[in-house]
Amino acid sequence: MALGRIRTDLALETKEKFEEDNVEIRGVIIEEDYNEEKDIRTTTVKIETENGAKAMGRPQGVYITLEAPNMSVPDEDYHREISKELAKHIKKLVPVEKELTALVVGLGNRDVTPDALGPDVVSNLHITRHVIQEYGVQSMGKEYANSISGLVPGVMAQTGMETLEIIRGVVDETKPDVVFAVDALAARSTKRLNRTIQITDTGINPGSGVGNHRNGLSEETLGVKVIGIGVPTVVDAATIVQDSMAHLLDTLEESEKKEFLEEMISPSLHSMFVTPKDVDETIKRLSYTISEGLNMAFEQA
Amino acid sequence: MALGRIRTDLALETKEKFEEDNVEIRGVIIEEDYNEEKDIRTTTVKIETENGAKAMGRPQGVYITLEAPNMSVPDEDYHREISKELAKHIKKLVPVEKELTALVVGLGNRDVTPDALGPDVVSNLHITRHVIQEYGVQSMGKEYANSISGLVPGVMAQTGMETLEIIRGVVDETKPDVVFAVDALAARSTKRLNRTIQITDTGINPGSGVGNHRNGLSEETLGVKVIGIGVPTVVDAATIVQDSMAHLLDTLEESEKKEFLEEMISPSLHSMFVTPKDVDETIKRLSYTISEGLNMAFEQA
Amino acid sequence: MALGRIRTDLALETKEKFEEDNVEIRGVIIEEDYNEEKDIRTTTVKIETENGAKAMGRPQGVYITLEAPNMSVPDEDYHREISKELAKHIKKLVPVEKELTALVVGLGNRDVTPDALGPDVVSNLHITRHVIQEYGVQSMGKEYANSISGLVPGVMAQTGMETLEIIRGVVDETKPDVVFAVDALAARSTKRLNRTIQITDTGINPGSGVGNHRNGLSEETLGVKVIGIGVPTVVDAATIVQDSMAHLLDTLEESEKKEFLEEMISPSLHSMFVTPKDVDETIKRLSYTISEGLNMAFEQA
Amino acid sequence: MALGRIRTDLALETKEKFEEDNVEIRGVIIEEDYNEEKDIRTTTVKIETENGAKAMGRPQGVYITLEAPNMSVPDEDYHREISKELAKHIKKLVPVEKELTALVVGLGNRDVTPDALGPDVVSNLHITRHVIQEYGVQSMGKEYANSISGLVPGVMAQTGMETLEIIRGVVDETKPDVVFAVDALAARSTKRLNRTIQITDTGINPGSGVGNHRNGLSEETLGVKVIGIGVPTVVDAATIVQDSMAHLLDTLEESEKKEFLEEMISPSLHSMFVTPKDVDETIKRLSYTISEGLNMAFEQA
Repeated sequence: MALGRIRTDLALETKEKFEEDNVEIRGVIIEEDYNEEKDIRTTTVKIETENGAKAMGRPQGVYITLEAPNMSVPDEDYHREISKELAKHIKKLVPVEKELTALVVGLGNRDVTPDALGPDVVSNLHITRHVIQEYGVQSMGKEYANSISGLVPGVMAQTGMETLEIIRGVVDETKPDVVFAVDALAARSTKRLNRTIQITDTGINPGSGVGNHRNGLSEETLGVKVIGIGVPTVVDAATIVQDSMAHLLDTLEESEKKEFLEEMISPSLHSMFVTPKDVDETIKRLSYTISEGLNMAFEQA
Repeated sequence: MALGRIRTDLALETKEKFEEDNVEIRGVIIEEDYNEEKDIRTTTVKIETENGAKAMGRPQGVYITLEAPNMSVPDEDYHREISKELAKHIKKLVPVEKELTALVVGLGNRDVTPDALGPDVVSNLHITRHVIQEYGVQSMGKEYANSISGLVPGVMAQTGMETLEIIRGVVDETKPDVVFAVDALAARSTKRLNRTIQITDTGINPGSGVGNHRNGLSEETLGVKVIGIGVPTVVDAATIVQDSMAHLLDTLEESEKKEFLEEMISPSLHSMFVTPKDVDETIKRLSYTISEGLNMAFEQA
Repeated sequence: MALGRIRTDLALETKEKFEEDNVEIRGVIIEEDYNEEKDIRTTTVKIETENGAKAMGRPQGVYITLEAPNMSVPDEDYHREISKELAKHIKKLVPVEKELTALVVGLGNRDVTPDALGPDVVSNLHITRHVIQEYGVQSMGKEYANSISGLVPGVMAQTGMETLEIIRGVVDETKPDVVFAVDALAARSTKRLNRTIQITDTGINPGSGVGNHRNGLSEETLGVKVIGIGVPTVVDAATIVQDSMAHLLDTLEESEKKEFLEEMISPSLHSMFVTPKDVDETIKRLSYTISEGLNMAFEQA
Repeated sequence: MALGRIRTDLALETKEKFEEDNVEIRGVIIEEDYNEEKDIRTTTVKIETENGAKAMGRPQGVYITLEAPNMSVPDEDYHREISKELAKHIKKLVPVEKELTALVVGLGNRDVTPDALGPDVVSNLHITRHVIQEYGVQSMGKEYANSISGLVPGVMAQTGMETLEIIRGVVDETKPDVVFAVDALAARSTKRLNRTIQITDTGINPGSGVGNHRNGLSEETLGVKVIGIGVPTVVDAATIVQDSMAHLLDTLEESEKKEFLEEMISPSLHSMFVTPKDVDETIKRLSYTISEGLNMAFEQA
């Protein structure tokens, strides 16, 4: 029924939905880990078969989710711990060998606060490619160094181009080994907002992100490995209404439900999002936490 | 019942709520005007008695609302018409005489897109006070000129001070004849967003605005006349859920309603807002339309 | 001698330098026009031979310069006139035929005020490509419409990539008919700042712009016609010192001159620029004037 | 002679000028300290008499200057050392006792990159006043806590008001024990840019700062102690030219000098400044270093 259309960019939430409904999905492996001291919960969802992919509504691959309730709280030491965890997972997904060349893409609209996560992450990265190209690795004062470049492509309303077109052009021209695509995501539940990071080796899926990318960024579309890193910063307005009504609707017949939902969810809600009022402070902190995680992964290499 | 708590900063929406419920309020006069050619609807709500104020939940005074469906659309000529209408109403509320001194205050958080309306309006104003103070009115190349100053106080999380404290200090020091307070508002309905301007001679009420001002800005608190100019740019997340459920709830008993609402509206929803995805473009256009309206009012004087 | 190295991105200033020295250059044609009513001076420098190009230190092509003393003054009507002039020249250089596809690139660093001209121009453009791609030309409500896209690539310190690499990638992918590259330029004289627009069919030359592009953008490097549009917003700090000393140095012997210059121009000066204190207001106005010029050229087509 | 008018906001540079000329000033005490390990040079200039104040062209008081060549280089650990030094000096000038209430003012224009230092510092401060006012000191999880507020008043071209008017109003209303005024300064020498911090108990002097404050901020004008914290981020364009010519002029007669200078320094140069091209990165780092210094001073209290 209609609730199935509830939108989430988090594999974790799709998994939870199935658990709620007591449905088991074949081809999907779940691993959970909880670090009590740091209060970080790590869930790994591995979609291993075409069947699992179909059931989960997302491509085969690994989806790692870090949940840390204090992520949206200003505590520098705690954020450093999250950056370290992030770096650890990145290095597992992309064995950062000597002289890796990586392009980090900051997706989203820098002029809409909850969508500015990606652009803000890129602005705090240690960019090295131009220095290495000009003066060689030894100029970095190390035996070897990774070559990092960064791009903020903007959104379609600003550029008239699909994000995929811009990035594919730049990838073809500069030939990085791997692309990291950082994006603000939509969650199903407001409880998840700004305290969850999803890292996946499947890139960015079509229809995900605050602005709903029409085309995904993946090895298939870009020709190089794409790691997607996302934080849910909004919930779709239609989702929040549906979700709030779910229990109430349980008292109704299935046919009545559908009617109610169609009547009640104004179409304009689908172009609106829900986000916390202090989103400016949260995005500032989270983008710094993620760029530090990337910097660590690239530098400790 | 609980729905009464639905939050709106628009007198117009409170009026409509009463009309829905077929309640007539004494002490409140409504005038409506529709300009078909320009497609601008003007509603004037005059709260004339203490009784009317109590019923409407807002102070006695005049609340003018311009509704223009195309306000959120990029059409320069149309926006000029709205600026003109706005200037007309401002000059009715504040007879702009020769040598008026006015302080325009841009309320809200410039770092949260739908709350940046006020700061953006101030950045497009023609500020004249310092020139007149230094070189005299004749330096403006006119027989007389109004003395306009502007202030963007920031929000409490950034300053640690109430907006009222900052503005009262500046008003005491610079002694303007009138304060214009421009703010992003919360509407009850998403249909109202970014296509409505409210102008009132009652200033800014406590609890209004995206960030919920704790203290109002009014002649009572500032000692000078305060004109409030607001555009609804968000709907409270709790409101949108309540509203969506209203019809559904009508099938229930009153006592059940209350229970449902309390269960269903997560407390965190009260610190969240709903806003359109293209809010950046909308705020840019609307703030320009309003600052042009103010510039016209001050210059044609 | 050393003064020859004085840096300017304006063909007009190079021409003037030759005139000062009473040198005539073959292969270079100068046309001047002065519109007294509008107080706009238009100088067209045509470099027609390889010899002329060598002497002028820039590629063969047409360089049109609009000089308008009031360009840095806030007068909307006057700025509209400049936009119209700009549109006229653009349409002469690029016969805007039906269904032109153009990519407008905003060069420079949006975080350094005098270098933000290009990015600011792109943010005020009417972007149409995505609408035409999705819904067809008829959706624009016109018989035909030009397909306009925009890109703000950032600067090398932010991206680790050459601007040329990024733009070449995007051009290869999206195949526009023509690229417009908008950039903040360096002038030789502070008198020229923010009151001059240069339009050229040679694109952007290596070493030009506030940030000194290492590689030019031209038909040769991009494979499509490139129109460069620039406004001088800074003077190199070394240039201003050299220029100020020029007269004083005239009293010295040639050998003494060189010694003095070498001693006096601190190497660090070459990484510094001179710009007016009110550069924020100026850039805001000028970028709007230029984007309006581009919008006019594309829409009146 | 004219060179005496060379503008600097650094007491240290005025002192050096006197040393160059072998002039000793009575009533001025100099203390120097060099921390070799950290490569931080600390110079304390104490102006103790009216005579000394007259000679130095600045009020009686203490001027502490931290010089750290690597201050403009991205090295987090090094910046932490500078923050610590800054905190140490702040706590010497303002014995931060229990329950101090401080207002930190970020002077300058946030839209002009080298002038954005003050506004950027305020945006990274830990603001506590509103929390303490609302929930009491115990809510901070400490036995006692300082009450910190912050204000970004904007510049006169944006507000039409003198900075002094705005701050005096806010100080009268909120009654802090002490005001910290953070500002971008003008140095005489480009060598000093972005590697020097001046801390003084005399506040901000008239005519100082990038935008030349017309009225100073001091205990005399505000009624509470004012600590000025400044970093030179620009050199006046006129100064750089004068300075470059100084040696050359030494070969001329005194009367010739004056004539040359008057002829050569274009009046427009006085409204221009010189700053490095990478000023965006530098301001970002320095503002963070200073806000961390302030946060440390307030928190370790």
